[in-house]
Amino acid sequence: MSYDSDNVFAKILRDEIPSMRVYEDSETLAMMDIMPRADGHVLVIPKTPARNMLDASAEQMAACLNTVQKISRAMMQAFEADGVTVQQFNETAGGQEIFHLHYHVLPRFEGVRLRPPGNMEDAEVLKANAEKIRAALSAKS
Amino acid sequence: MSYDSDNVFAKILRDEIPSMRVYEDSETLAMMDIMPRADGHVLVIPKTPARNMLDASAEQMAACLNTVQKISRAMMQAFEADGVTVQQFNETAGGQEIFHLHYHVLPRFEGVRLRPPGNMEDAEVLKANAEKIRAALSAKS
Repeated sequence: MSYDSDNVFAKILRDEIPSMRVYEDSETLAMMDIMPRADGHVLVIPKTPARNMLDASAEQMAACLNTVQKISRAMMQAFEADGVTVQQFNETAGGQEIFHLHYHVLPRFEGVRLRPPGNMEDAEVLKANAEKIRAALSAKS
Repeated sequence: MSYDSDNVFAKILRDEIPSMRVYEDSETLAMMDIMPRADGHVLVIPKTPARNMLDASAEQMAACLNTVQKISRAMMQAFEADGVTVQQFNETAGGQEIFHLHYHVLPRFEGVRLRPPGNMEDAEVLKANAEKIRAALSAKS
Protein backbone atom coordinates (compact mmCIF):
# COMPACT_ATOMS: atom_id res chain seq x y z
CA MET A 1 0.00 0.00 0.00
CA SER A 2 1.56 3.28 -1.05
CA TYR A 3 0.70 6.97 -1.32
CA ASP A 4 -0.58 8.23 -4.67
CA SER A 5 0.01 11.98 -4.85
CA ASP A 6 -2.72 12.34 -7.50
CA ASN A 7 -5.50 11.80 -4.93
CA VAL A 8 -8.12 14.54 -4.54
CA PHE A 9 -6.87 15.78 -1.17
CA ALA A 10 -3.28 16.05 -2.41
CA LYS A 11 -4.63 18.16 -5.28
CA ILE A 12 -6.58 20.33 -2.85
CA LEU A 13 -3.45 20.80 -0.73
CA ARG A 14 -1.58 21.93 -3.87
CA ASP A 15 -4.47 24.28 -4.75
CA GLU A 16 -5.00 22.45 -8.03
CA ILE A 17 -8.69 21.99 -7.26
CA PRO A 18 -10.95 24.13 -5.06
CA SER A 19 -12.17 23.30 -1.57
CA MET A 20 -14.26 25.05 1.05
CA ARG A 21 -11.81 25.48 3.90
CA VAL A 22 -12.99 26.20 7.42
CA TYR A 23 -9.68 26.03 9.31
CA GLU A 24 -6.02 25.37 8.78
CA ASP A 25 -2.79 25.41 10.72
CA SER A 26 0.76 24.42 9.80
CA GLU A 27 -0.01 20.68 10.00
CA THR A 28 -3.70 20.23 9.15
CA LEU A 29 -6.56 21.44 6.96
CA ALA A 30 -10.31 21.25 7.68
CA MET A 31 -12.80 21.61 4.84
CA MET A 32 -16.46 20.96 4.10
CA ASP A 33 -17.34 17.48 2.76
CA ILE A 34 -19.12 18.21 -0.53
CA MET A 35 -21.24 15.07 -0.08
CA PRO A 36 -22.23 15.61 3.55
CA ARG A 37 -23.87 12.82 5.53
CA ALA A 38 -25.00 15.46 8.05
CA ASP A 39 -25.36 19.24 7.77
CA GLY A 40 -21.97 20.74 8.59
CA HIS A 41 -19.95 17.55 7.83
CA VAL A 42 -16.24 18.46 7.86
CA LEU A 43 -13.11 16.55 6.79
CA VAL A 44 -9.80 16.99 8.62
CA ILE A 45 -6.58 15.99 6.84
CA PRO A 46 -2.85 16.29 7.51
CA LYS A 47 -0.90 18.55 5.12
CA THR A 48 1.77 15.87 4.72
CA PRO A 49 1.30 12.56 2.87
CA ALA A 50 -0.23 9.51 4.57
CA ARG A 51 -2.36 6.95 2.77
CA ASN A 52 -4.46 6.39 5.90
CA MET A 53 -4.08 5.72 9.63
CA LEU A 54 -2.18 2.47 9.04
CA ASP A 55 0.89 4.33 7.72
CA ALA A 56 0.39 7.66 9.55
CA SER A 57 2.97 9.07 11.96
CA ALA A 58 2.14 9.77 15.60
CA GLU A 59 2.62 13.47 14.81
CA GLN A 60 0.14 13.40 11.93
CA MET A 61 -2.50 11.64 14.04
CA ALA A 62 -2.00 13.95 17.02
CA ALA A 63 -2.21 17.07 14.84
CA CYS A 64 -5.37 15.80 13.12
CA LEU A 65 -7.03 14.88 16.40
CA ASN A 66 -6.34 18.33 17.85
CA THR A 67 -8.01 19.88 14.80
CA VAL A 68 -10.89 17.36 14.96
CA GLN A 69 -11.47 18.46 18.56
CA LYS A 70 -11.32 22.16 17.70
CA ILE A 71 -13.80 21.67 14.84
CA SER A 72 -16.07 19.49 16.99
CA ARG A 73 -16.28 22.07 19.75
CA ALA A 74 -16.99 24.79 17.17
CA MET A 75 -19.72 22.62 15.59
CA MET A 76 -21.44 22.04 18.93
CA GLN A 77 -21.71 25.81 19.23
CA ALA A 78 -22.26 26.77 15.57
CA PHE A 79 -25.13 24.36 15.00
CA GLU A 80 -26.26 23.92 18.61
CA ALA A 81 -25.51 20.24 17.95
CA ASP A 82 -26.33 17.52 20.49
CA GLY A 83 -23.27 15.43 19.68
CA VAL A 84 -20.49 14.68 17.22
CA THR A 85 -19.60 11.48 15.38
CA VAL A 86 -16.03 10.92 14.18
CA GLN A 87 -15.27 8.28 11.53
CA GLN A 88 -11.94 7.33 10.00
CA PHE A 89 -11.77 4.75 7.21
CA ASN A 90 -8.77 2.67 6.17
CA GLU A 91 -8.60 0.94 2.79
CA THR A 92 -11.62 0.29 0.54
CA ALA A 93 -13.03 -2.46 2.77
CA GLY A 94 -12.78 -0.04 5.69
CA GLY A 95 -14.87 2.54 3.83
CA GLN A 96 -12.04 4.67 2.41
CA GLU A 97 -12.58 6.31 -1.00
CA ILE A 98 -9.81 8.93 -1.11
CA PHE A 99 -6.37 7.63 -0.20
CA HIS A 100 -5.05 10.49 1.90
CA LEU A 101 -5.65 10.16 5.66
CA HIS A 102 -8.86 11.94 6.66
CA TYR A 103 -11.22 12.17 9.60
CA HIS A 104 -14.96 12.69 9.09
CA VAL A 105 -16.42 15.04 11.72
CA LEU A 106 -20.22 15.01 11.78
CA PRO A 107 -22.48 17.26 13.88
CA ARG A 108 -25.35 15.17 15.26
CA PHE A 109 -28.85 15.93 16.50
CA GLU A 110 -31.23 13.86 18.62
CA GLY A 111 -33.35 11.65 16.38
CA VAL A 112 -31.55 12.58 13.13
CA ARG A 113 -29.77 9.71 11.37
CA LEU A 114 -26.78 10.11 9.09
CA ARG A 115 -27.79 10.41 5.43
CA PRO A 116 -26.58 7.82 2.91
CA PRO A 117 -23.26 8.80 1.32
CA GLY A 118 -22.82 10.04 -2.23
CA ASN A 119 -25.21 13.00 -2.56
CA MET A 120 -23.63 16.29 -3.61
CA GLU A 121 -24.76 19.27 -1.51
CA ASP A 122 -25.70 22.67 -2.91
CA ALA A 123 -22.69 25.02 -2.78
CA GLU A 124 -24.70 27.76 -1.04
CA VAL A 125 -25.65 25.40 1.78
CA LEU A 126 -22.02 24.29 2.20
CA LYS A 127 -20.92 27.92 2.21
CA ALA A 128 -23.46 28.89 4.88
CA ASN A 129 -22.42 25.97 7.10
CA ALA A 130 -18.72 26.76 6.60
CA GLU A 131 -19.41 30.37 7.67
CA LYS A 132 -21.11 29.20 10.85
CA ILE A 133 -18.16 26.99 11.78
CA ARG A 134 -15.64 29.74 11.00
CA ALA A 135 -17.63 32.21 13.13
CA ALA A 136 -17.66 29.79 16.07
CA LEU A 137 -13.92 29.21 15.69
CA SER A 138 -13.23 32.98 15.64
CA ALA A 139 -15.38 33.56 18.70
CA LYS A 140 -13.15 31.17 20.65
CA SER A 141 -9.75 32.47 19.57
CA MET B 1 -21.36 17.62 30.63
CA SER B 2 -19.29 15.94 33.31
CA TYR B 3 -17.54 12.66 33.99
CA ASP B 4 -19.46 10.01 35.91
CA SER B 5 -16.98 7.60 37.49
CA ASP B 6 -19.64 4.89 37.71
CA ASN B 7 -19.54 4.24 33.95
CA VAL B 8 -18.72 0.71 32.77
CA PHE B 9 -15.22 1.54 31.51
CA ALA B 10 -14.28 3.26 34.76
CA LYS B 11 -15.39 0.07 36.56
CA ILE B 12 -13.32 -2.05 34.17
CA LEU B 13 -10.28 0.18 34.81
CA ARG B 14 -10.78 -0.34 38.56
CA ASP B 15 -11.13 -4.11 37.98
CA GLU B 16 -14.61 -4.04 39.48
CA ILE B 17 -16.02 -5.81 36.43
CA PRO B 18 -14.26 -8.17 34.02
CA SER B 19 -13.06 -7.36 30.52
CA MET B 20 -11.22 -9.21 27.79
CA ARG B 21 -8.04 -7.19 27.46
CA VAL B 22 -5.82 -7.44 24.38
CA TYR B 23 -3.30 -4.70 25.12
CA GLU B 24 -2.43 -2.08 27.65
CA ASP B 25 0.25 0.48 28.35
CA SER B 26 0.59 3.17 31.01
CA GLU B 27 -1.96 5.44 29.33
CA THR B 28 -4.40 3.21 27.44
CA LEU B 29 -6.31 -0.07 27.50
CA ALA B 30 -7.60 -2.09 24.53
CA MET B 31 -10.30 -4.73 25.05
CA MET B 32 -12.80 -6.77 23.06
CA ASP B 33 -16.22 -5.16 22.47
CA ILE B 34 -18.66 -7.75 23.88
CA MET B 35 -21.27 -6.67 21.31
CA PRO B 36 -19.03 -6.66 18.23
CA ARG B 37 -20.25 -5.12 15.00
CA ALA B 38 -17.46 -7.03 13.20
CA ASP B 39 -15.42 -10.08 14.24
CA GLY B 40 -12.45 -8.81 16.25
CA HIS B 41 -14.07 -5.46 17.20
CA VAL B 42 -11.86 -3.76 19.81
CA LEU B 43 -12.36 -0.72 22.05
CA VAL B 44 -9.47 1.57 22.99
CA ILE B 45 -9.83 3.82 26.05
CA PRO B 46 -7.58 6.15 28.04
CA LYS B 47 -6.83 5.08 31.62
CA THR B 48 -7.59 8.58 32.88
CA PRO B 49 -11.07 10.16 32.97
CA ALA B 50 -12.56 11.88 29.91
CA ARG B 51 -16.28 11.89 29.12
CA ASN B 52 -15.54 11.87 25.38
CA MET B 53 -13.40 13.62 22.75
CA LEU B 54 -14.99 17.00 23.51
CA ASP B 55 -13.32 17.22 26.93
CA ALA B 56 -10.26 15.00 26.25
CA SER B 57 -6.70 16.28 26.59
CA ALA B 58 -4.30 16.28 23.64
CA GLU B 59 -2.26 13.68 25.55
CA GLN B 60 -5.25 11.35 25.99
CA MET B 61 -6.17 11.56 22.31
CA ALA B 62 -2.58 11.04 21.13
CA ALA B 63 -2.09 8.04 23.43
CA CYS B 64 -5.38 6.49 22.29
CA LEU B 65 -4.58 7.02 18.61
CA ASN B 66 -1.20 5.37 18.99
CA THR B 67 -2.91 2.35 20.53
CA VAL B 68 -5.63 2.39 17.87
CA GLN B 69 -2.90 2.24 15.23
CA LYS B 70 -1.07 -0.58 16.99
CA ILE B 71 -4.28 -2.60 17.29
CA SER B 72 -5.28 -1.83 13.69
CA ARG B 73 -1.97 -3.06 12.30
CA ALA B 74 -2.23 -6.20 14.44
CA MET B 75 -5.81 -6.79 13.21
CA MET B 76 -4.79 -6.49 9.57
CA GLN B 77 -2.34 -9.32 10.23
CA ALA B 78 -4.31 -11.39 12.75
CA PHE B 79 -7.46 -11.62 10.65
CA GLU B 80 -5.90 -10.99 7.22
CA ALA B 81 -8.31 -8.05 7.14
CA ASP B 82 -8.77 -5.87 4.06
CA GLY B 83 -9.25 -2.67 6.00
CA VAL B 84 -10.09 -1.06 9.34
CA THR B 85 -12.90 1.30 10.33
CA VAL B 86 -12.46 3.62 13.32
CA GLN B 87 -15.47 5.26 14.95
CA GLN B 88 -15.59 7.61 17.92
CA PHE B 89 -18.93 8.81 19.29
CA ASN B 90 -19.59 11.92 21.39
CA GLU B 91 -22.79 12.32 23.41
CA THR B 92 -25.95 10.28 22.90
CA ALA B 93 -26.88 12.01 19.64
CA GLY B 94 -23.37 11.23 18.37
CA GLY B 95 -23.85 7.51 19.10
CA GLN B 96 -22.19 7.35 22.53
CA GLU B 97 -23.57 4.88 25.08
CA ILE B 98 -20.77 4.68 27.66
CA PHE B 99 -19.51 8.04 28.86
CA HIS B 100 -15.78 7.40 29.02
CA LEU B 101 -13.84 8.31 25.85
CA HIS B 102 -13.48 5.28 23.57
CA TYR B 103 -12.49 4.45 20.02
CA HIS B 104 -14.12 1.58 18.13
CA VAL B 105 -11.61 -0.31 15.98
CA LEU B 106 -13.25 -2.68 13.49
CA PRO B 107 -11.48 -5.13 11.16
CA ARG B 108 -13.16 -5.02 7.75
CA PHE B 109 -13.43 -7.43 4.83
CA GLU B 110 -14.42 -6.82 1.20
CA GLY B 111 -18.19 -7.20 0.84
CA VAL B 112 -18.89 -7.65 4.57
CA ARG B 113 -21.03 -4.95 6.17
CA LEU B 114 -20.94 -3.99 9.83
CA ARG B 115 -23.52 -5.88 11.87
CA PRO B 116 -26.26 -3.95 13.71
CA PRO B 117 -25.21 -3.00 17.25
CA GLY B 118 -26.50 -4.62 20.42
CA ASN B 119 -25.91 -8.36 19.96
CA MET B 120 -23.83 -10.05 22.63
CA GLU B 121 -21.10 -12.34 21.25
CA ASP B 122 -20.27 -15.79 22.59
CA ALA B 123 -17.39 -15.56 25.10
CA GLU B 124 -15.43 -18.32 23.34
CA VAL B 125 -15.52 -16.41 20.05
CA LEU B 126 -14.36 -13.22 21.77
CA LYS B 127 -11.59 -15.16 23.48
CA ALA B 128 -10.37 -16.70 20.22
CA ASN B 129 -10.33 -13.30 18.49
CA ALA B 130 -8.53 -11.71 21.44
CA GLU B 131 -5.89 -14.45 21.24
CA LYS B 132 -5.32 -13.76 17.55
CA ILE B 133 -4.81 -10.05 18.16
CA ARG B 134 -2.48 -10.68 21.11
CA ALA B 135 -0.44 -13.12 19.01
CA ALA B 136 -0.08 -10.57 16.21
CA LEU B 137 0.95 -7.90 18.72
CA SER B 138 3.59 -10.21 20.25
CA ALA B 139 4.96 -11.13 16.84
CA LYS B 140 5.72 -7.45 16.20
CA SER B 141 7.34 -6.57 19.50
